[in-house]
Amino acid sequence: MIRALIFDVFGTCVDWRTSVAREVVAVLPRVDAHVFADAWRAEYEPAMARVRDGDRGYVPLDDLHLENLQRIAARTGVTVPGALNTAWERLDPWPDVVPGLTRLKTQFIIAPCSNGSIALMTRLARFAGLPWDCILGADIAQDYKPNAAVYLAGCAALRLEPNHVMMVAAHNRDLAAARAAGLVTAFVPRPTEHGPNQASDLAPEEDWDVIASDFGDLAERMAT
Amino acid sequence: MIRALIFDVFGTCVDWRTSVAREVVAVLPRVDAHVFADAWRAEYEPAMARVRDGDRGYVPLDDLHLENLQRIAARTGVTVPGALNTAWERLDPWPDVVPGLTRLKTQFIIAPCSNGSIALMTRLARFAGLPWDCILGADIAQDYKPNAAVYLAGCAALRLEPNHVMMVAAHNRDLAAARAAGLVTAFVPRPTEHGPNQASDLAPEEDWDVIASDFGDLAERMAT
Repeated sequence: MIRALIFDVFGTCVDWRTSVAREVVAVLPRVDAHVFADAWRAEYEPAMARVRDGDRGYVPLDDLHLENLQRIAARTGVTVPGALNTAWERLDPWPDVVPGLTRLKTQFIIAPCSNGSIALMTRLARFAGLPWDCILGADIAQDYKPNAAVYLAGCAALRLEPNHVMMVAAHNRDLAAARAAGLVTAFVPRPTEHGPNQASDLAPEEDWDVIASDFGDLAERMAT
Repeated sequence: MIRALIFDVFGTCVDWRTSVAREVVAVLPRVDAHVFADAWRAEYEPAMARVRDGDRGYVPLDDLHLENLQRIAARTGVTVPGALNTAWERLDPWPDVVPGLTRLKTQFIIAPCSNGSIALMTRLARFAGLPWDCILGADIAQDYKPNAAVYLAGCAALRLEPNHVMMVAAHNRDLAAARAAGLVTAFVPRPTEHGPNQASDLAPEEDWDVIASDFGDLAERMAT
């Protein structure tokens, strides 16, 4: 009996690469915007890993994004306006996301379980029209996915057992961690998240509880 | 420059007394439902005070509500179903609340800053149609209002300075604490929150930054 669906956001709900590139073009017309977006995103995992591994205390993703932006600016010699950091608050949803979430919300609690902060997820939801019931994720846990604490803190905040909560993601690693923490899992592929040459997460790598082609298909499969 | 409005919920957004009484009638037809609701609510402040004063660690309001319900049951000798505790998830909004919030949301981040948990506020929002952008309040701070930590944790979660955040409440004490923490304040009277003989909070007791007759008037005053 699933009571809540919690979602990865970057890549699963929103097309961060195209959207960040659009913001980069607007302020840095001379750089290759997609290369810049990919370089910025490449700093994401190692920055969170230092928090996950205990090398530093919890720092919200907004701050990690800014540190990463400054690192890329220093490396490439490009002068980057700090305001570009808010690009992560203006990411377009994949076209199926808002209709699918709206339908799922009639039956389930829906919330992001992202590494983005409450502030970032709140502003992104307002921009993209994501109709969340509440914001879960890294801030609630003071830790980063795929550490189990993030999934479990989300369930605890909703006062639900993990086996009553479904984690929805386009990333096999995210789902493997959620499953290990006791959650139910749903995979939705986003084969162009990383652009036309994406090589990872093109298909499910385990027998996830639900495998759906998009959020409309997910809503259909979850309808009772 | 106000960027977010955060709201007291019990009394300010929802008519807890009438709604809880309705739930009491349904399961305890022989008791005076309004007397029961008032007795249950009377246990609220002392239960939170023990957490605020450090006599016990943070316990979510859902659990305090259940402890308080069991205390009243023991005192009155009435056998009370534990499921009655979910009455607090089914409280009717005052009629001006949903239209007022919907209008305010077009211009500001809106969120509850309640002593209710994320779980309770999420389920209540779904029941009452409260269109929150995110859920702030006691769970985020692991403390209870009117301790300053709750208001400040809400501002911090939104990455806003307190002077860019307005606290909206029907209770002068709540606003006094929010003002002391540096927030902007708005008073909306709810003269029947405690029934026809209410004696407290009938009028503003300080020069709050905004004094509005209801949420529609508040939206009107905040429109730029």
